Amino acid sequence: MTNDLIDRRQAVLGPNVPTFYDNPVHLVKGEGVWVWDANGHKYLDCYNNVPHVGHCHPHVVSAISAQAGTLNTHTRYLHDGIINYAERLIAKFHKGLDQLIMVCSGSEANDIALRMAQAVTGKTGIISTDNTYHGNTMAVSQLSSRKPPIGGYAANIRHVPAPDTLRPVGGNAKTQAQAFAQEIQKAINDLEVSGHGFSGFLFCPTFANEGLPDLPKDFMKPAEKVVHAAGGVLISDEVQPGFGRTGDSWWGYEWLGLSPDVVTLGKPMANGHPVAAVVARESVMSEFRNAFGYFNTFGGNPVSCAAASATLDVIEEDDLIANSKIVGHGFLERLQAIKHGSIASVRGRGLFIALELETDGIADEVLAATIVEYARNNGMLMGRTGRNRNILKLRPPMPFSIQNAREATNTLTAAFKSF
Amino acid sequence: MTNDLIDRRQAVLGPNVPTFYDNPVHLVKGEGVWVWDANGHKYLDCYNNVPHVGHCHPHVVSAISAQAGTLNTHTRYLHDGIINYAERLIAKFHKGLDQLIMVCSGSEANDIALRMAQAVTGKTGIISTDNTYHGNTMAVSQLSSRKPPIGGYAANIRHVPAPDTLRPVGGNAKTQAQAFAQEIQKAINDLEVSGHGFSGFLFCPTFANEGLPDLPKDFMKPAEKVVHAAGGVLISDEVQPGFGRTGDSWWGYEWLGLSPDVVTLGKPMANGHPVAAVVARESVMSEFRNAFGYFNTFGGNPVSCAAASATLDVIEEDDLIANSKIVGHGFLERLQAIKHGSIASVRGRGLFIALELETDGIADEVLAATIVEYARNNGMLMGRTGRNRNILKLRPPMPFSIQNAREATNTLTAAFKSF
Repeated sequence: MTNDLIDRRQAVLGPNVPTFYDNPVHLVKGEGVWVWDANGHKYLDCYNNVPHVGHCHPHVVSAISAQAGTLNTHTRYLHDGIINYAERLIAKFHKGLDQLIMVCSGSEANDIALRMAQAVTGKTGIISTDNTYHGNTMAVSQLSSRKPPIGGYAANIRHVPAPDTLRPVGGNAKTQAQAFAQEIQKAINDLEVSGHGFSGFLFCPTFANEGLPDLPKDFMKPAEKVVHAAGGVLISDEVQPGFGRTGDSWWGYEWLGLSPDVVTLGKPMANGHPVAAVVARESVMSEFRNAFGYFNTFGGNPVSCAAASATLDVIEEDDLIANSKIVGHGFLERLQAIKHGSIASVRGRGLFIALELETDGIADEVLAATIVEYARNNGMLMGRTGRNRNILKLRPPMPFSIQNAREATNTLTAAFKSF
Repeated sequence: MTNDLIDRRQAVLGPNVPTFYDNPVHLVKGEGVWVWDANGHKYLDCYNNVPHVGHCHPHVVSAISAQAGTLNTHTRYLHDGIINYAERLIAKFHKGLDQLIMVCSGSEANDIALRMAQAVTGKTGIISTDNTYHGNTMAVSQLSSRKPPIGGYAANIRHVPAPDTLRPVGGNAKTQAQAFAQEIQKAINDLEVSGHGFSGFLFCPTFANEGLPDLPKDFMKPAEKVVHAAGGVLISDEVQPGFGRTGDSWWGYEWLGLSPDVVTLGKPMANGHPVAAVVARESVMSEFRNAFGYFNTFGGNPVSCAAASATLDVIEEDDLIANSKIVGHGFLERLQAIKHGSIASVRGRGLFIALELETDGIADEVLAATIVEYARNNGMLMGRTGRNRNILKLRPPMPFSIQNAREATNTLTAAFKSF
């Protein structure tokens, strides 16, 4: 049945639509941190951040069902849903980030953020790191070094070397923050000389796609200074770190002590319902809203707002940010205790952990793939990231327990023993 | 309460986020073709095509609830939902349109379509009409003359004069098809000379935003010939006409006898759940999929597929395409019987009807606005379209009955008598 599905999938979706794992998982059910396949096998989900408060959380499902059965329209009519949600969400940001646009995907959110930078500055040059992914629209894919755009990069794009734990920018972990800021300054200068000018810097505050490097709290301060000194817009992409993932705070930028001008939200926002948003300073929002008559048919509809609001309820009522901190810390300690010659670094914050694998000082993509496949075949789902795909990525739903962390560690310990 | 909501809305959403109507409607409930406001007033919905099979249709709501409570993941795992839906949907297209990508919004779908044209041709020039809107991403907003992009139009964009009932391209309704094709040919030549080359032509087969002009069945044949002779990709945007809206067929392009290479779907696809898609020829899909590693986190998730599939169920089981044809025809006849010196044209197909208003040969935007406001204040929701916003737009949910058509006609008759 599963093999038949693979053939039918290729026939209707076309080529190069990869699934995870050598032996793809055919899922049929999810609950909390667990998913089940068509053969009844159970997997501990250590990868998916979209079902943020747990797969099929009954409170979110109820909210979706109730609102879908009552009214689902768009924001050209007045509705309490988006206003109540917006006020509640905005209260979780530092003062100044006062307004939002609701959309359907993180890609749509980042696509707007780029235009906000353009509207504010009147310039088009944009900078991101050289080992990242921020979304799939034509404009946003220009920033994604991991999936280069069709037709190649446009002339207004600059990619700066990504922060890295084992190979820091500038060669020295202690001066990496300054070296990174200098690279941004160089890119800004280059954009100014080229005539595009500098509109903004878009980054993930955990540098998740870059491999989740271990960075000091003040790492981004020199970069922020450089961006703002040049009149650029600082855009924090919270699609991965947002909603308390790191266990320290609601947003990844807070831990770094930053004051971004624009924040983009996505994946975990409504526990899997297609919802995303852009939160911005009032001045930035005005420039964008007056420069372009933006309307999003599905963005901010009553069902999306109900799903997003219910997700906030669960984060708060179940104290999931504290859970992420405590369980994440315990998980990290356990993982750091695994002994294997190829584990070069185990790092992370909250329920977002990376294990970087090197053999003889060289990124070991093969071992990373082997461990991931072993886990999949032993009831645990995880993934890989990093420039060389040699970094194991653990990013489970937020209700992950210390018992789950023990189970996951046991599986990984066995995996590393085997190879 | 409603006034308070308007102030709070402005505070959190910012400026230039318009609502419909001078006195915005604060909606709280929807059912079938009816919606209710916070004061308990009931409105006949003659405008919204997103709740395609009727507001809050219980079959769609049940499907969403059941799947949201069972599993909601993404397409990197195998799942029956997307495969079953894709096979079912593709069977409704002419042979050749064999593969699809599921996304969250019509904008995301058109954003992909543009890149498909680019991947197939290796060129970037793209053509649309000069009175249209195809979506809100940075790339797609380049095609939208109704909402010009931030920073102005890029050099690879050409807008050709839109078909028009009262003021046909080339000045003569009988030769409008040829004149329109010639304008496309001129734009193609211009793109070739400019060095961008011609990648494709993106159009709505009902030219809905252009004002729903009355066109003969063979209208697009010369244009199709010109586009294909130049090696361009023909992209049919079915976000408005799709899913049987016009009462003749599932897709707007069918009535015109066309063979588009790419079709984009949106708004009505899942009755309001954020779902959209791109359907393409196998060869086009391969070029795109191999040129870009496209992945959409929410696109094609099990809940979206369940919602879209349930929407197909209702269209088929309730025979809504035939209903659109029959009721649409009766509605059109009734509307054509309204006597008023400023009604210059009443036209449409199925449940998609336009009344164009002119006074002394000049587009009468003020009268159109007045009629829309009158309707709103008398329990009927409708909108306006066209270059001069002087065309009344009627596009109700598909279960609209002949009794509803009578009610709407009575309201409009009274409105036209008053002004």
